[in-house]
Amino acid sequence: MKIVVDSELLAEALEDASKAIASKNIMPILDCFLIEAGVDGVKVTGTDTRTTIQSYIFSEHVQIEAPGQIALPKLSLEVIKKLNGDVSIEKKGNNVIIISRKKEIDMGVFDSEEFPRVPDIDDSELFETTGKELKKLFKKATYAADPTGKNAAILAGAHVYINDGVIGIEATDRHRLAKTEQPTDVGHLGGAVIEAKALGELQKIILDKDNLEFGFSKSFTGDVVHVFVRTDRFTFYSRVLEGAFPDVGRMSIVPDGVTEVIVEKGELMSCLDLVYTLAKEDKHNKIVLNITADEVSIRGQGRETGKANESIVPVSFKGGNFAVALNSKYFMDAIKALDGDKVKLVFSGKVKPIFILDESDKKSVHIVLPYRTEEV
Amino acid sequence: MKIVVDSELLAEALEDASKAIASKNIMPILDCFLIEAGVDGVKVTGTDTRTTIQSYIFSEHVQIEAPGQIALPKLSLEVIKKLNGDVSIEKKGNNVIIISRKKEIDMGVFDSEEFPRVPDIDDSELFETTGKELKKLFKKATYAADPTGKNAAILAGAHVYINDGVIGIEATDRHRLAKTEQPTDVGHLGGAVIEAKALGELQKIILDKDNLEFGFSKSFTGDVVHVFVRTDRFTFYSRVLEGAFPDVGRMSIVPDGVTEVIVEKGELMSCLDLVYTLAKEDKHNKIVLNITADEVSIRGQGRETGKANESIVPVSFKGGNFAVALNSKYFMDAIKALDGDKVKLVFSGKVKPIFILDESDKKSVHIVLPYRTEEV
Repeated sequence: MKIVVDSELLAEALEDASKAIASKNIMPILDCFLIEAGVDGVKVTGTDTRTTIQSYIFSEHVQIEAPGQIALPKLSLEVIKKLNGDVSIEKKGNNVIIISRKKEIDMGVFDSEEFPRVPDIDDSELFETTGKELKKLFKKATYAADPTGKNAAILAGAHVYINDGVIGIEATDRHRLAKTEQPTDVGHLGGAVIEAKALGELQKIILDKDNLEFGFSKSFTGDVVHVFVRTDRFTFYSRVLEGAFPDVGRMSIVPDGVTEVIVEKGELMSCLDLVYTLAKEDKHNKIVLNITADEVSIRGQGRETGKANESIVPVSFKGGNFAVALNSKYFMDAIKALDGDKVKLVFSGKVKPIFILDESDKKSVHIVLPYRTEEV
Repeated sequence: MKIVVDSELLAEALEDASKAIASKNIMPILDCFLIEAGVDGVKVTGTDTRTTIQSYIFSEHVQIEAPGQIALPKLSLEVIKKLNGDVSIEKKGNNVIIISRKKEIDMGVFDSEEFPRVPDIDDSELFETTGKELKKLFKKATYAADPTGKNAAILAGAHVYINDGVIGIEATDRHRLAKTEQPTDVGHLGGAVIEAKALGELQKIILDKDNLEFGFSKSFTGDVVHVFVRTDRFTFYSRVLEGAFPDVGRMSIVPDGVTEVIVEKGELMSCLDLVYTLAKEDKHNKIVLNITADEVSIRGQGRETGKANESIVPVSFKGGNFAVALNSKYFMDAIKALDGDKVKLVFSGKVKPIFILDESDKKSVHIVLPYRTEEV
């Protein structure tokens, strides 16, 4: 294999593919990029065997002097970033020679045959969207997953489904829940649970302006095995988590609240930000909300660090005075996922879920469970 | 105690004092600021018992409603940073109440009597300089110390001396050495070894425009016990390391080189930067220089990662061809400490110290010992 390519272009392709490479690998080959040069250009692949990212450099942007493939250590990305202008990359025996002006780097390559095979994808079931739309969708729910999957492996993922002209995403870690839906012009593709971690990496490589194909690749029994996202720059695919996602539909219906209050999002966040400084010293991040027609007061307490208290004036208020204790980190995460500049809070009882809603987006629901506490 | 002060001004004072607070403390009182309010204004102190930083808010910038003192947890800095405009800080029993607009923070305070006593400083022996000058002096030598003091406690410091109208600083970790001198209008104050770590923190709080007093505080036997740096914003003082600093005077005389070469600093650094990417994978950071009249080639090799090679054209050359292996990290550290845009390298033999010199600053000497190796 021998190619000549602009170092910046190559660095971008490696950077994207590197997002799928795990930080620690038992097998050295998984610490590599697979670089394939052929008539279409150059394809760079990174994988942790569950998630794979392939990025492309089209033939018009690269000189293929000899087609072929190599498995290049991850460290090569750092090297390529230090270069300027065109670089030549050539395989010689078990090494690759990278030349840029007077710089010559000689790296060992791995056996490219050992690189995991990229899965075959059935790309018949997909819908088209933009990077901006897809990232917006993910942002509104992924935060609520439990990436460790500690209590239930399936909760390490977000459930994405396309049913009856709607694309929806929902995630929960049992203490909080987020769900959003949007109309789409695609009918019914089914659903799959995608690891929150993979969705996080995916969001880093998607650009707002990308035109994307998002789809499900199914087994012959009709189960979704992989999800994929394809642009002209890269293809991302990830195995989906197996098992049934909990049915959160009923939980996410907004109840008639005994107390409903609307506040300015900016004010609420600045208030929480201060209280959180102390609350985060305690592992429960506990804060207490006291809501009346005149003020929403927020009180936080670190175990040994002290307490903070701040209040804001509600924009509107309905129902009776209400007090509740909750996890301030979870509360802030939910508020950050809202688009609008006002936050509606709905309380339906002492130990009932707290709904954090966006008046400008009726299709999204964010829920945090309160702490059971005597103190409030 | 009760004061009212601009939150930004207070945050700055706390920030400076916090530089002396260790990250982990066994005694909770050392995790605190001592805040003293009196007729002159407010004094904020942080200490790790060896190094102490006191910063000031003058009486014209603070309302002292009740004089007194409190020991406030380090976390308060984070809290104050989140506030805007004036804050009121008031001691009530064992707590301090911080109020800013509608925000109210209630923190536990510690017994201020437990706070370590600030040492008495004899400030009769000092010289005046600017922040810019002092930082420049420190930068040229401190890097060569061994902050861990692993092999010899005294080498964790930099030796600063004022003798015969010269201020000098020298540091070594036995594998490298840096030394610089500058004329000063102060005659003879003696010398002291200051911890490199403390000098690092000090550099963070000095501004270029500061007018400084730098001096030694001596015991009745005439030994330097503390060094101090005083501006109108803060006073820094640090105990000095006890013991004799090795006599590096003879070592730092530039020899007649068998090979002397001058190269562009920018070119050399960019070259080293790339080679270091691979060389740093090996714990010795080993690189090999090959010097001829036509080129200086730099070759680096990671243990399993590959090797890099780059060459630059010397500006001038004297002597015979020369090859040497050395620590690239040490080499880069020395080059960064140079002011000029050209680097002069002097080699006087296979296993002899390598001199890294600045043509624009004859008073500074930087030395790295080569690796003994068969390979070169």
